[in-house]
Amino acid sequence: MQKEVNKEVLSKLVELGKEIYKQIERGEFPKIKIPIRSTSNIIFDRTLNQLILGPEVSERSAGNIKQIRSLAQFLWVAAFAKKLIEEGKSSTLRDLFYHSLNYEIRFRKQIESNETVADLEAYLGVPRESFNIFPKERASIFGDITIEYTTPETHKGVRVNLSSNPDGVMIGLSVAHSEFISCNADKVFVIEKNAIFRRFIEERVHVKFNAILIDTAGQAPRMARLLIRRLNEELGLPVYILTDADPWGMHIAMVIIKGSANAAHLRELTTPKAKWIGLWATDIRRFNLPSFPLSKLDEERIKKLEEDPRYRDFEWQCELQEFKKIKRRAELESFSAYGLNAIVEKYLPKKLKIIEEIS
Amino acid sequence: MQKEVNKEVLSKLVELGKEIYKQIERGEFPKIKIPIRSTSNIIFDRTLNQLILGPEVSERSAGNIKQIRSLAQFLWVAAFAKKLIEEGKSSTLRDLFYHSLNYEIRFRKQIESNETVADLEAYLGVPRESFNIFPKERASIFGDITIEYTTPETHKGVRVNLSSNPDGVMIGLSVAHSEFISCNADKVFVIEKNAIFRRFIEERVHVKFNAILIDTAGQAPRMARLLIRRLNEELGLPVYILTDADPWGMHIAMVIIKGSANAAHLRELTTPKAKWIGLWATDIRRFNLPSFPLSKLDEERIKKLEEDPRYRDFEWQCELQEFKKIKRRAELESFSAYGLNAIVEKYLPKKLKIIEEIS
Repeated sequence: MQKEVNKEVLSKLVELGKEIYKQIERGEFPKIKIPIRSTSNIIFDRTLNQLILGPEVSERSAGNIKQIRSLAQFLWVAAFAKKLIEEGKSSTLRDLFYHSLNYEIRFRKQIESNETVADLEAYLGVPRESFNIFPKERASIFGDITIEYTTPETHKGVRVNLSSNPDGVMIGLSVAHSEFISCNADKVFVIEKNAIFRRFIEERVHVKFNAILIDTAGQAPRMARLLIRRLNEELGLPVYILTDADPWGMHIAMVIIKGSANAAHLRELTTPKAKWIGLWATDIRRFNLPSFPLSKLDEERIKKLEEDPRYRDFEWQCELQEFKKIKRRAELESFSAYGLNAIVEKYLPKKLKIIEEIS
Repeated sequence: MQKEVNKEVLSKLVELGKEIYKQIERGEFPKIKIPIRSTSNIIFDRTLNQLILGPEVSERSAGNIKQIRSLAQFLWVAAFAKKLIEEGKSSTLRDLFYHSLNYEIRFRKQIESNETVADLEAYLGVPRESFNIFPKERASIFGDITIEYTTPETHKGVRVNLSSNPDGVMIGLSVAHSEFISCNADKVFVIEKNAIFRRFIEERVHVKFNAILIDTAGQAPRMARLLIRRLNEELGLPVYILTDADPWGMHIAMVIIKGSANAAHLRELTTPKAKWIGLWATDIRRFNLPSFPLSKLDEERIKKLEEDPRYRDFEWQCELQEFKKIKRRAELESFSAYGLNAIVEKYLPKKLKIIEEIS
């Protein structure tokens, strides 16, 4: 799968190169048009139900002295991406920055090279993973699903069942791009923290609820988001997200469902049908959970989320209002006050029922 | 293995309970003696070459009104540990704190319950993993070693080769406590960050250098440290640690080798024979690496490390002095300035040779 993606991106990059050459041969200053990624051009698409870029583009021309530098940087990053794909290598944003130090075009700081990579993403309309620039991995998976690796070459065709390691398997490029061979689970639980992921394995949630378990370790990394989307779209598995009851947890769920502003130029990482099943702000009272006062930072964050178009839906607004009313937050672990397996025995069944009733 | 450890701890806990009962039956105020864990009682053992606790103990007696509270908390934590082992459940420090909210003995904050758990570790002389309280996991492993799970029950006897998933396998309780069945590698590379771990897999370091690769994702979690020690001691594999060239990276290596002050009451997590092979401060000049100025925080940290008894060895002091002289730090990724595979093709062979020569 990564290979097919690579191939498509490679042909786009070759196209870009040819276009630049043609312009030069015609005696023109080479120029390109890149979608603008600033807030002014980020809009919430009600049909897609996610943040996307608007129609605005900016031009970078070698004919404009102010734009030569950024055009050259953009073309260097494009050339680097082409080289990565051709050589079958991968890289990180940090690697790319260091690698650039060896060339004439120097980025002032890594933030500049990161921005240029995002420009290339916007130009090509694909995430940087498609041209082999990967973020660090933290997420892991456990469940009765058999996959077949399509990458790297050494593992191509190898099949593995993702319940083989009780500590979980890392979700990297290879897992995220594998082919799904067979799956005995009928749902996915996405959990924001390792402690609850482990509790779920220990309490055999994968068997009791016939579920695949994913630990995002905080904000879901992009490979994890891609895998969640594929489990939902390709296998039709419903996805349920569990987070702490605070504005940060809520937003972990939101980014999985409707995408992040940082990735508004990308559309293939969201899972619009995924459901946030808790902890809701209203769960604190519903289950009489031990809770803590919101910090000032929490309260500011809630105000921001209130104005965020992704949060316009009634249920999300209700939860934000509840946070403002009770001024408290609670963690997934708080269920331990009622016994270590309370979250599995009491919470999960009840919450799945509530979700079924309201949807 | 976890089971045997559990059994031993369980009998110590039962012993503790009996002792308390006996004292009460004799009409005495029950009391216990706990090794003191404060700096005044942490000493550097030159034979063991690691930090250990000195001989000082403190008494907690129900006969002293100031000590009743902490004695009761200690006994509650011991009872909780016993329950965890008996029921075959696991927990986290956070879980334990929440669980305590349901009982009469309330901890003021989690820091108080964490401290009590450390007291129980010191009392029993075992890490909290031995009574099923686990920290969050971040580390992962990749390499040609076949293990057989001894825990949990569902996976007992299952064998898996740790090169089966090219994204790596999480190092949790099950992996760290597994039996080693067969191993074709002859060394271990421990790497402090995921980007370089992935680069190593991609460049097939596991084949070229016949090595097992471990990603600690920053400071090595305790299960990773246990596994590293076991690979070194049980299989006799030399361990080489790679970190950034800064005082924080250095200390990641040091904690793996000689242990942390937080765990001075434990001795089974260190790998005294492991070698820090870089990036050294002297590597910045040796390999002409792109580098950055040290921050004020870096400089303060270096001063602290200079006085740390773990750093008294000549080589470590030299590196600290070099940092002070050049006032710069460098990252593992900085090799990318010389090509993405420079760290594997140029750095690793040279560094292994240097290490061989000086040891």
